[in-house]
Amino acid sequence: MRSMTTTVEVTATERYGYLDLTDDLRRAIKDAGVTDGAAIAFCEHTTAALLINEWEDGAMADFRRHLTEQVPHDGVYYAHDDFDIRTQNMNEDERKNGHAHVKAMMLSATSHAIPVVAGEPGFGRWQRVIFLELDEPKGRRITFHVFGL
Amino acid sequence: MRSMTTTVEVTATERYGYLDLTDDLRRAIKDAGVTDGAAIAFCEHTTAALLINEWEDGAMADFRRHLTEQVPHDGVYYAHDDFDIRTQNMNEDERKNGHAHVKAMMLSATSHAIPVVAGEPGFGRWQRVIFLELDEPKGRRITFHVFGL
Amino acid sequence: MRSMTTTVEVTATERYGYLDLTDDLRRAIKDAGVTDGAAIAFCEHTTAALLINEWEDGAMADFRRHLTEQVPHDGVYYAHDDFDIRTQNMNEDERKNGHAHVKAMMLSATSHAIPVVAGEPGFGRWQRVIFLELDEPKGRRITFHVFGL
Repeated sequence: MRSMTTTVEVTATERYGYLDLTDDLRRAIKDAGVTDGAAIAFCEHTTAALLINEWEDGAMADFRRHLTEQVPHDGVYYAHDDFDIRTQNMNEDERKNGHAHVKAMMLSATSHAIPVVAGEPGFGRWQRVIFLELDEPKGRRITFHVFGL
Repeated sequence: MRSMTTTVEVTATERYGYLDLTDDLRRAIKDAGVTDGAAIAFCEHTTAALLINEWEDGAMADFRRHLTEQVPHDGVYYAHDDFDIRTQNMNEDERKNGHAHVKAMMLSATSHAIPVVAGEPGFGRWQRVIFLELDEPKGRRITFHVFGL
Repeated sequence: MRSMTTTVEVTATERYGYLDLTDDLRRAIKDAGVTDGAAIAFCEHTTAALLINEWEDGAMADFRRHLTEQVPHDGVYYAHDDFDIRTQNMNEDERKNGHAHVKAMMLSATSHAIPVVAGEPGFGRWQRVIFLELDEPKGRRITFHVFGL
């Protein structure tokens, strides 16, 4: 039984920027030496998400538009951003990112569990693992835990 | 330590059709010979989803109505379906299914991780694992990876 | 290889009440004796959810408001609650909770898979595992399956 955790650090180029992490996942599987088992992909952040879907600019633009219409980043009151009343978890450089927390909780896309088959992610033809930044770009950590035979 | 991956092939009878895969999951657990461990249920598609919820026609109809109101399949522009400008991943038989990609990303329900207890899925009383077709019906592959003792 | 499943029982104080289960997850990891591996957090219910996000009252209030606006608990017809026509899964004490099923399916937040690193959940700085009651408060079971070395 093999078991290995690796971390990649990524930064999107813009708010709502996408990054294709499929090759990073593949590398984590190879490094773990697992042929048959599974991989967990985990995003260590509360204002970002991991999607498994197709890497096609139109579909990704459609999703971005829908998500930002549903949960706008301006014109809506977010208690998380009301620094006159908020007391918890305040930082020196606290950002107004209440919208990104709501988006992240709606998506609930922090982790995925993916079969590993013949040393590769058990993805269908169009599937890719995709990082989505919901806040302003910053350094983000994605962890892959791979286990199996 | 036992570890086994099995795949089932399913086809819904209609767009937004549901299929109860709980017995398929049970069979995968039995076939793996796992008594205590966990199972990963994974949908290999970008326009379909796996839900864990109650199999009750009313609740499933309510959810279908909500989802299609939120993300309509017509009357909305989807860049994914704009074949005049789209260049990536074009097939001979490309379908207009941009709505289904947006639904799938909103749900983010490609995989689930389920404890296995006493040789059965560790489900509560009403839980079932349910396939939901978001596109026109076609053959779909669902993978179960079961591991443990 | 170690592998252990533990269950905690929780009850929220109100509808849409949140409970921080991070210490319960930590205890499950310690009890399993796993240093490097992964943990599955699984909610055994069809009208409740597990979130991984920040424990900050404002963000949690923002999310509650958004979710209840999207899927209202009154003023909308739910076939699940139409006891004149419904035939499946009827209990003596059947509750009108169709809204909670739709919320749960939209979130699709029944399970999470979390790396375990150095005997702790591999969480980023702000991440907590949070139970969210979607129905009236009642006793709920959350299962942690921990495995690894």
